[in-house]
Amino acid sequence: MENSFNNRLQEICKLKNNRLCIGLDIDPKKIKEKIQSDFLSIIDFTKDIVDATIDLCPVYKLNLAFYECYGSKGYDWMGKIVDHIGSRSITIADGKRGDIGNTAIKYADSLFNHFGFDSVTLSPYMGIDSIIPFIEYESKGSFVLCLTSNRGANDFQYNLSNNEPLFVSVSKFCRDLNDKNNLGIVVGATKSESMNLISDNSKGLSWLIPGIGAQGGDLESSVKISNKNGIGIINVSRAILYAGDGSIECIKQSAQDYTKEIRKFL
Amino acid sequence: MENSFNNRLQEICKLKNNRLCIGLDIDPKKIKEKIQSDFLSIIDFTKDIVDATIDLCPVYKLNLAFYECYGSKGYDWMGKIVDHIGSRSITIADGKRGDIGNTAIKYADSLFNHFGFDSVTLSPYMGIDSIIPFIEYESKGSFVLCLTSNRGANDFQYNLSNNEPLFVSVSKFCRDLNDKNNLGIVVGATKSESMNLISDNSKGLSWLIPGIGAQGGDLESSVKISNKNGIGIINVSRAILYAGDGSIECIKQSAQDYTKEIRKFL
Repeated sequence: MENSFNNRLQEICKLKNNRLCIGLDIDPKKIKEKIQSDFLSIIDFTKDIVDATIDLCPVYKLNLAFYECYGSKGYDWMGKIVDHIGSRSITIADGKRGDIGNTAIKYADSLFNHFGFDSVTLSPYMGIDSIIPFIEYESKGSFVLCLTSNRGANDFQYNLSNNEPLFVSVSKFCRDLNDKNNLGIVVGATKSESMNLISDNSKGLSWLIPGIGAQGGDLESSVKISNKNGIGIINVSRAILYAGDGSIECIKQSAQDYTKEIRKFL
Repeated sequence: MENSFNNRLQEICKLKNNRLCIGLDIDPKKIKEKIQSDFLSIIDFTKDIVDATIDLCPVYKLNLAFYECYGSKGYDWMGKIVDHIGSRSITIADGKRGDIGNTAIKYADSLFNHFGFDSVTLSPYMGIDSIIPFIEYESKGSFVLCLTSNRGANDFQYNLSNNEPLFVSVSKFCRDLNDKNNLGIVVGATKSESMNLISDNSKGLSWLIPGIGAQGGDLESSVKISNKNGIGIINVSRAILYAGDGSIECIKQSAQDYTKEIRKFL
């Protein structure tokens, strides 16, 4: 299992002495006006963000919605960014996929083979056969939604079944499926009060933690608790992408600032 | 609410006297050899399937995985098929999306505005803010996963919270959100034993029912129960797409056969 996803993630995080994941959820309407007008400039701008931060950033997360909304042109943009990152960092296809077996096979083929992502995010609602086709790729990772950072997390994720909230059942389910050491869970940084409970039930799983920055999550608990048993990576999207005047220099500075904060707690 | 999605769905189903939804989950490797080799031929073949069945078929469902796995080329194919169907039938973007608010806004924009789909499938795991941005489009529909047709449905969907299985909580949640008469739920045809329970808790919601054909679901219960309070549509994918020798004639015949069966129970 040397080449397992969780080992690869751990190695690159230790090499760069960082747990930062930059979320490349770029909204062209929010970036500098001179770039907005031309799609090729947007692709170049995204590559510039990567090049300015890749020495310190071990993981990049691409939120598929932000590319898909431009249709085939957007998917072309996404493919170019994954290629540009290459093996310099780990990539996450953040699409929260979840479907029956024959469809999950297609999504895995799409995201791992066609686009070449290193990992994906998945929704647990449809259960085991929606997860298996992804984890069959040993060197590729799957982060399954466990306890999310948003308001709607309250609707179903805390449902108590046999005295156990749904998010704990999901965590145990993933832990028990992690034979290939390539599974992880998504835990919102805004949910620090539940992190110890999740930690007790997620041995061996890596954590992807969104909700820092614009959503106001707790960085200290996120870094400390998620790195107790494995590797926890901290996603920051908007707070880095739109930092300061939106220039590459400000973006780089913001990534450096988050890195400093993260290193304090490692 | 005359132009609400559920009214539009009801009208076209009554007009065509049918509840059939053909799932255009086309796997080029499974269709006739002379077509496989050339992507343009595959687009034409998909259009031929639509043209051969659209007089009787009120709804087409496009499973996004089957297009996405060809990257930007596949998304271009998908866009062309949605355009080709136009207003002749209702289209469903079957992507089971589910993400935080700012991302859900992007997915809704992508699927409703960019691609022009009439409706989507959504996953409930992340709760209310992952659903709201879709239902704000009154004339567009959202089918939320409730009780799915696959094996993995057993993993979490039956979890009992306050003596109520998760799928019933999801059904009630959708029912209570259906102010604009544009919400529906996904109920697997293989789950006929739970359909009356769902029906009691889904007043006003339309149903999308997969699992007929290759997955062996129960057509009679599916049609009868789902049409008690509203409109239930029956999805058939593989059993129509790969019928007989895979020719357009066999596909058309299979769609006619399913239509006859469905009409028996209306």
